[in-house]
This record gives sequence, structure tokens and C-alpha cells, in this order.
Amino acid sequence: MLIAGVDVGGTNTEAALVNDKHRVVARSKKPTPKEGPDAVIDTIRELIDSLKKKPGAVGVGIPGAVNGGKVITVPNLPHWSAGIDLGKRLRTSLGLPVALGNDANVGLLGEWLAGAAKGADNVLGVWMGTGIGGGLILDGRPYTGSRGAAGEVGHVIVRADGALCSCGRRGCVEAYAGRHLMSATVRAIYQSGRKTSLFKIQKAEGKPQPTSKVWARALKEGDTLAQEVFATGINTLGLGIASILNVLDLERVILGGGMADRMGQALADRVGKATRPWVMAPNPALKFVAARLGDDSGVVGAAALGRALISAA
Amino acid sequence: MLIAGVDVGGTNTEAALVNDKHRVVARSKKPTPKEGPDAVIDTIRELIDSLKKKPGAVGVGIPGAVNGGKVITVPNLPHWSAGIDLGKRLRTSLGLPVALGNDANVGLLGEWLAGAAKGADNVLGVWMGTGIGGGLILDGRPYTGSRGAAGEVGHVIVRADGALCSCGRRGCVEAYAGRHLMSATVRAIYQSGRKTSLFKIQKAEGKPQPTSKVWARALKEGDTLAQEVFATGINTLGLGIASILNVLDLERVILGGGMADRMGQALADRVGKATRPWVMAPNPALKFVAARLGDDSGVVGAAALGRALISAA
Repeated sequence: MLIAGVDVGGTNTEAALVNDKHRVVARSKKPTPKEGPDAVIDTIRELIDSLKKKPGAVGVGIPGAVNGGKVITVPNLPHWSAGIDLGKRLRTSLGLPVALGNDANVGLLGEWLAGAAKGADNVLGVWMGTGIGGGLILDGRPYTGSRGAAGEVGHVIVRADGALCSCGRRGCVEAYAGRHLMSATVRAIYQSGRKTSLFKIQKAEGKPQPTSKVWARALKEGDTLAQEVFATGINTLGLGIASILNVLDLERVILGGGMADRMGQALADRVGKATRPWVMAPNPALKFVAARLGDDSGVVGAAALGRALISAA
Repeated sequence: MLIAGVDVGGTNTEAALVNDKHRVVARSKKPTPKEGPDAVIDTIRELIDSLKKKPGAVGVGIPGAVNGGKVITVPNLPHWSAGIDLGKRLRTSLGLPVALGNDANVGLLGEWLAGAAKGADNVLGVWMGTGIGGGLILDGRPYTGSRGAAGEVGHVIVRADGALCSCGRRGCVEAYAGRHLMSATVRAIYQSGRKTSLFKIQKAEGKPQPTSKVWARALKEGDTLAQEVFATGINTLGLGIASILNVLDLERVILGGGMADRMGQALADRVGKATRPWVMAPNPALKFVAARLGDDSGVVGAAALGRALISAA
């Protein structure tokens, strides 16, 4: 049976029909609306309608935490508040069974079922996009925590009294390594007089902000300011991942999200190099691997959540 | 059947006979020898012999990581090296089935079976003693990682380029909140001319170093330097615990070890207060609780590992 998987990202929302071998057979994509959950629900309905075939169920990954269908927090999208019964509203709008999960958690689930995390029992997924998300596979099964809010790699605190983060706290990994805050840092230093090609490339690519594609080009073309800010981001991310490895003793780290889509295994290698010196008694089997499904990891993992509803029924 | 549980600590080694209701029916204690694993094995044999009744199996918690009976790392004891087949040597010396675990992991296992962690599915145990150890219960079962090295709360990095830690890295929680390094900090500042009663109390108590009892007295009696160093320790520990909560979305944090034995729930409350501001979308059900079994948590948890050998056989 075909299941719809939906990945609501900070920038775009993608929907796909996924078969029981975790293969995408149809897909569709639109910018994520910024007007709040109702607009996002409308976009999801339009995307699923555009896939032509009616799915048996729907799984949706959102960029935040949901518990029992209700929103706990959606930090990177405006006009979302805690307590919204997103599950119920989506079921009503779509007329289908709906399962919800965190976008990074479902992304790792996709990679674990059909991509770079396949066969590993203890895995951290790190998703570098607008923010930094994450997911966990522990003891051979997805781990989402007491309320489905686990995996916030971006909010591991690596510098007490450090840089202000979008979450309102200080010194989080995301404050240094999230694309949104890296771009803000480059902009502030650019406005103080230093040179950068980041915004020229953004304009040339016709993007409303410096996307992963824009960042990857700036880094490749040798933009010194972008490279410096990115190096700080990667080193900080490495510290955060090392803290997680010291607590969880994992065997694989998957790098995914927009930055990994553009930079591939080179990004995973670089993050591994930044992480290893901080790991206590490193596991010789520890590997850093780029996600393999690209944009599809989220929709494949989300569809697996939807499929579990049907199997359980 | 009675099982022997042994807890090899940085300071003392304790052994106990534990019944199938996780109750201690006999106990014995000696200082942990500093001459290396053979001396520790002799001490364990002497302790078990002194319990009079022969146990059906033995579980041993050591202050480090072991995998398949072999030592990975034992950072707080001298003359231990990676690769030592501690399991085999203990079986030969004791003539009994032997299971090994990390001391903090087995301590939390004891609290989960019979103490403060009972009934919770997602728990972090933080053991404040010579160093800072930790353990995890995730999704309703003990989690020890790919190689049994999970739970190193003391080596979550909270300050990039921070204070030097006993592990050789920088900015770890243990570099600020471990009793050994807190004592070294007080000593260095004392030698620079500031007043403290910590070493007077140590002398009066007849201890070779400032133990948890010495620290608890100095804090209670208003020693300003001890209080300042301890406050930095607790705040840093709070940052580290918050990072773990942001990644794992837990419902309970247990504070144990020597400091918790002396300070009880007041310590758990204080650590909770230092942690909460750094937790993203805190779980309303989140509780910070002092360990209830005191010195017994380690031996009770270790005995449960030994008992599992018999049940599995």
C-alpha cells in the first residue's frame, strides 16, 4: 500500500508517495508558508492532492516537537504555539489516518530503514539546515524520549555564557552551526566592512536568504569570511556531538539536511575530524557518514510512521 | 538465591550479599587499593569471603568502562590499562560466574530496581563522587551503549577551551564538578592566600583527602571558598545535564554518589534549579530526586547483573 510521507522543513514542505520497500514513487514540493499551522495544513493537503493517488495513511515530520498529536514547540516557524492539536486538524483536513513526528527524528528513521544508517544499532542523526536538528536510534530502535522531544542536538550547550541562540538560551550548538545564525553572523561582519561573496551568490541564485546551496558555493569558491564562520560552526558542532557520544557510546553519526545534501561525505568527514579529539575512549567502530537519501530521508521516514498506523490497526 | 554485588569506587570497595528482593543481607567494605587490577581483585575476594555465605554469582561495578569483560578505560584508578581481561581474572580468582559493569550504570540500575528511579522509563543517574559518573534508563530498560561505555555525564563538554579535566580534554563537567578537581581548585586558591576550613575539617575527620563528608561539613559551616567552588560545580553540572535532557527528553534525574549521600534532596533540588533554565521545552513531569539506597545502590545494581547471569543460564 502507498503511504504519503510529508516533511515540513523550515524552508520547504515536501510530500511523497512511498511504497512498502521505502521507495518514493511520486513527489511534490512547495515553500513552507509562514502564516502558521492552518496555512501549513492547507499546503500539506494541496501537496498530497497533487500526488494523484490517494494514500492509505499519512506521516508528517514537523520542525519541532509533538506529543500525542499536540504541538510542544516549533522553534523555527512563526505563529506556532504549544498545545495546538495538529494531529486532529490534519486528520479532519485530509480524511486519512495521520501520524506525526519530529522532522529530524523521521529523517533519521528514513536513513535507518533505507539509507546510511541501515544496519547500525546506535546512531545519532544530525540535520544541518536552517537550524540543527537530530534524531537517535538506540539499542536497535528509534528513540524519541518521554514526550517525543528527543534529539535536539542543536541545543546541546557547548559554551557557557556563549552566543545567543534562537531558542532564547546561550551557547547552544545551533547558535554557531545553524545556517540561519551563521548567515546572520556573516551579514553582521559584512556590514562592519569585511568582504564576502555570500550575498552576491544568494542574489545570483535568486534565493530569499543564503540557502545551503548558496553556502556550499561560497565555501567552494574560497570566501574567507564564510569559511571562518563555517569552521567555527563545525568545531562547535563537533564539541556537541562529542558530548553526546560520551553519554551514549554510539557507533554511527549520520550527517544530513541541506548542508549535507550539497557537501556530501566531505562534510561528514570534516565533522568527524572536529568531533574525535573530544570523544572519551572513542569506539574504533565509530563512523561519520553522509545521509544517502537526500531530500527523501524525511518523507521516507514520515511515511514509515504513517505505515505503522495501518499495521497497528 | 543470594548474589554478591561489588562496587569498586575511587575511594572504597564495597561488597554485599543481595537477596532476590534486591535487599542487602550482609555487607563489607575496604579502601580501594591503588596498585592496579590484581590488588583490586584480591580485595574483592577478601570482601566476598568475609560475607561468610557463598553467593551463586558475582556482579562487579568498576569506575570505568568494560566491554565483554575487558577493560576499555578506568580513568580514576592508577595502573589500569585498556585490554585487561578483568572478567576472566575475576572468574579464576573467585571460582564463580562474574558479570561486570560501570559503577555508575549499576548504581542507577540499583536505584531503578529498588530506589529513587523506580517506575520511571527515561532516567539519567548522576553520581557525584571523586569524579562524575552517570547511567541511563531509556524506554524502560538500562542503556549502556555500543560497548558499555555510555553514561559519561562527567565528560559532557560545557565550556569550549575550558578548564583541564582528568581525562586530558578541556571544559568537561567533571573538571568543575568532580570532587577531586573541586578540592584541587580550593587547594590552589588556598595556597595563594585565601582562607578555607576545608583542609582543617579534613584533618579533624582524619581523612587522606577532602571526602564528600568533609565537603558537606565545609559547605554547611559556611566556608566561602568551598561554597564558591561548589556553586561553579553545580552550575556547570546543570548545563551538562540540560544538554543531555535536550537530547534525550527524560522524565527523571537521580543524584547519587558521596555528595548526594551527605546532602540528600537538597543537592537534587539545587542541581534541578541550575539545570531547568537551560532545558528546551522542559517536561512538566521532570523531577530531580536524590538516590535512596545510599552506598547500597552500587552493590544492589551489581548483584542484579550477577543474577542475570544465573537467570540466563
